[in-house]
Amino acid sequence: MSIILYELQGKNDLRFSPYCWRSRMALLHKGLDAVFEPVLFSQKEKIEFSNQTLVPILCDASQIICDSWSIACYLDDNYKDYPTLFGDQKARSLTKQFNYWVDIIIHPLLAKAIMTDVFEYGVADQDKNYFRKSREKRFGMSLEKFSSRSQEDIKHLQNALKPLSAILRDQAFIAGNSPSYADYILFGSVKFALLTCPRVIFPRDGSIGEWVNRMTNYYSKNED
Amino acid sequence: MSIILYELQGKNDLRFSPYCWRSRMALLHKGLDAVFEPVLFSQKEKIEFSNQTLVPILCDASQIICDSWSIACYLDDNYKDYPTLFGDQKARSLTKQFNYWVDIIIHPLLAKAIMTDVFEYGVADQDKNYFRKSREKRFGMSLEKFSSRSQEDIKHLQNALKPLSAILRDQAFIAGNSPSYADYILFGSVKFALLTCPRVIFPRDGSIGEWVNRMTNYYSKNED
Repeated sequence: MSIILYELQGKNDLRFSPYCWRSRMALLHKGLDAVFEPVLFSQKEKIEFSNQTLVPILCDASQIICDSWSIACYLDDNYKDYPTLFGDQKARSLTKQFNYWVDIIIHPLLAKAIMTDVFEYGVADQDKNYFRKSREKRFGMSLEKFSSRSQEDIKHLQNALKPLSAILRDQAFIAGNSPSYADYILFGSVKFALLTCPRVIFPRDGSIGEWVNRMTNYYSKNED
Repeated sequence: MSIILYELQGKNDLRFSPYCWRSRMALLHKGLDAVFEPVLFSQKEKIEFSNQTLVPILCDASQIICDSWSIACYLDDNYKDYPTLFGDQKARSLTKQFNYWVDIIIHPLLAKAIMTDVFEYGVADQDKNYFRKSREKRFGMSLEKFSSRSQEDIKHLQNALKPLSAILRDQAFIAGNSPSYADYILFGSVKFALLTCPRVIFPRDGSIGEWVNRMTNYYSKNED
């Protein structure tokens, strides 16, 4: 039985979830085959078996693993003969710190900057109602108001990314000379922006732009 | 011949430089004895031998190493039989990324918030003139103006520290269950604030407060 990754499905079968991209890249890194099972926002019954409501979900034989960080740890712990996602225990802990940094600082700035684009270009038509209602309840305001200071948010985002620019001037990838899970964490956010927003969010040139190109090439070269 | 660490000297022999603290903690972690050689801001002639003007500087036999990051790498590379500061190569790269994050995001917010305190309580009397003149030239304004939005800067700083709060709820230290160089990078900033500013800058409770206590105990227990 092969591994199954349940991941978010958008408009025209677009896969734009940053967290699902992390798991997709982790599987690619490990060289593990998987079946990708699309799930709309409104198809909660499809993932009821997981006893929670979010994707990504990884199913491997009888194991059901939810949450992108747990999926990465599961893959590294259970497929030790395949290339490591993290490195040693200290590297895994530092990657977890990086994961929190992206989730708590980077992602909220990004989501705020591009929310109306995500709604227009990312979300499937049959999910639009659900998406608008749930998000407006969460944010306490309309999507349009939430994203109304987009230019300012993009500036804050690019400022917050400065430490990344610096490390990527020193080395090709975040944890050294080859991609690691830290790269996939941020690459998820980059794909999220590239797939849903026609504007330039992550710099196209400089050290971050060059890293985006390297990551894109790495993905194209390794996916089936 | 023993190792010498040239470090900044402040008022009443206070050692408040965050970068010198990183090197001090790195030596402690390695269990290496060193002579600490104080240098005032105005004593540039004392470190002329290094062909640059900043501390920390580490002298080990004929080796002269400047800059706290280079010092940490030197110690880990040249004292391999002593406890590692980083872990594997990926962990070292991720620590470097963390170092940039503290230098580019955390430290400027902190310095801005407490600059007038540093001037009053940290800088030696005979350095005050030099310090004010050089900093005001660098900032393009008076120290007082530079620090005039201190409360706002402290709020930004505490917001920027949220990923740290999260990881320190999961584990005792930034890279796992025992202190690593990542901890010393941030601890340098904590000591800088504690030694020069009477106000509370880093949270005294919660996961960061508890980590500060653990780090303080670790330092007291291990220094000679």
